[in-house]
Amino acid sequence: MRDAYHDELESLTDRLVEMTRLVRSAMSRGTTALLDADLQLAESVISQDAEVDRIYNELESSIYELMALQQPVAVDLRTVVTALRMASDLERMGDLAEHIAKIARMRHPDSAIPAELRDTIVEMGAIAENLITKTGSCIASRDIELAKELEEDDDAMDRLHRRLFRVLLSDNWSHGVEAAIDITLAGRYYERYADHAVRVAQDVVYLVTGSRTDDVAAD
Amino acid sequence: MRDAYHDELESLTDRLVEMTRLVRSAMSRGTTALLDADLQLAESVISQDAEVDRIYNELESSIYELMALQQPVAVDLRTVVTALRMASDLERMGDLAEHIAKIARMRHPDSAIPAELRDTIVEMGAIAENLITKTGSCIASRDIELAKELEEDDDAMDRLHRRLFRVLLSDNWSHGVEAAIDITLAGRYYERYADHAVRVAQDVVYLVTGSRTDDVAAD
Repeated sequence: MRDAYHDELESLTDRLVEMTRLVRSAMSRGTTALLDADLQLAESVISQDAEVDRIYNELESSIYELMALQQPVAVDLRTVVTALRMASDLERMGDLAEHIAKIARMRHPDSAIPAELRDTIVEMGAIAENLITKTGSCIASRDIELAKELEEDDDAMDRLHRRLFRVLLSDNWSHGVEAAIDITLAGRYYERYADHAVRVAQDVVYLVTGSRTDDVAAD
Repeated sequence: MRDAYHDELESLTDRLVEMTRLVRSAMSRGTTALLDADLQLAESVISQDAEVDRIYNELESSIYELMALQQPVAVDLRTVVTALRMASDLERMGDLAEHIAKIARMRHPDSAIPAELRDTIVEMGAIAENLITKTGSCIASRDIELAKELEEDDDAMDRLHRRLFRVLLSDNWSHGVEAAIDITLAGRYYERYADHAVRVAQDVVYLVTGSRTDDVAAD
């Protein structure tokens, strides 16, 4: 009985890493769909979010069942409670990638991204991909040094987010209100995606060290 | 020892209800600050979010300490894990109210809301207030009928959110890109505030019934 139980605890990690793979792929394809107005790619991101949701719902059920039947304590309890939080953040990251794909679909056959913002969105997509890759490694390896790197990448994302607004509000903006709305929302989705990645990494730090370094402060 | 433990479990509920009061007040003042370009009110929302964060951090620490020292099982474990989720959603609702106040502050002494959208924002603010009031009652009374009402209120919020976009994208829009960005973000904040309120109520349902009705689906 205890063996099956420990197998189950280990499988939580595998399933979380699997979620990071899916939400990385979703964000990568979502960004390409947005930049290239690729409807088929956008549709694939939108339909495949169901797979992220399915893993999330299964993981959540396993965790509640495990808590009820096995009554984990000490480090095991910390592991399952933290897995629940991480799964919730990863599920949300899947939604955000899907939201980006929906902007691409809504504007197809046009691109929602004007030429002068293309590089910024490319960079935001690259940072998002980098963040979730590190998050996955961080969950798998429990390397807490990676968690620090994630916070720096998140700062880079915030700088790009502010750059978007500077372009939207410059006198040279010639693409009107609809494009500005799309870019405002897309920028928000990338920024939130990065925030959730950082939260997951902070949860790994908590799991390893047993202390929280991520007190919530005004953001 | 067990008595202090059960007192502590009960105090979790009190502190969650206290968080609902604070984030209701924050959203109510945030909406007024936004509509009336009231800088002082906006500043009060922004500075007082620290109080929500403080309660959240304390609550989280108490919960982790309680899990480590008392090793709760069965219904007690469900109570603490659910409290952790609810506190996280409520903390986020405080942030969203603060974001709305920050829009008001950024545009002061102008109002970020043009006359033709005033009624819609008033309604969104009223629904937000209604939602968090019911969420607080739901936590305190464990009345799961209230949770169903919250989902209807959330639908009303989504309808208002779509109305905002219709106005922004109409040919009559004469307020330019900056105002459109403000309203796009404010609309998103109200919508997310409502989503988090619904999640908290769904957690109460889980606490009472022991089964989850809120499987995550594509949103």
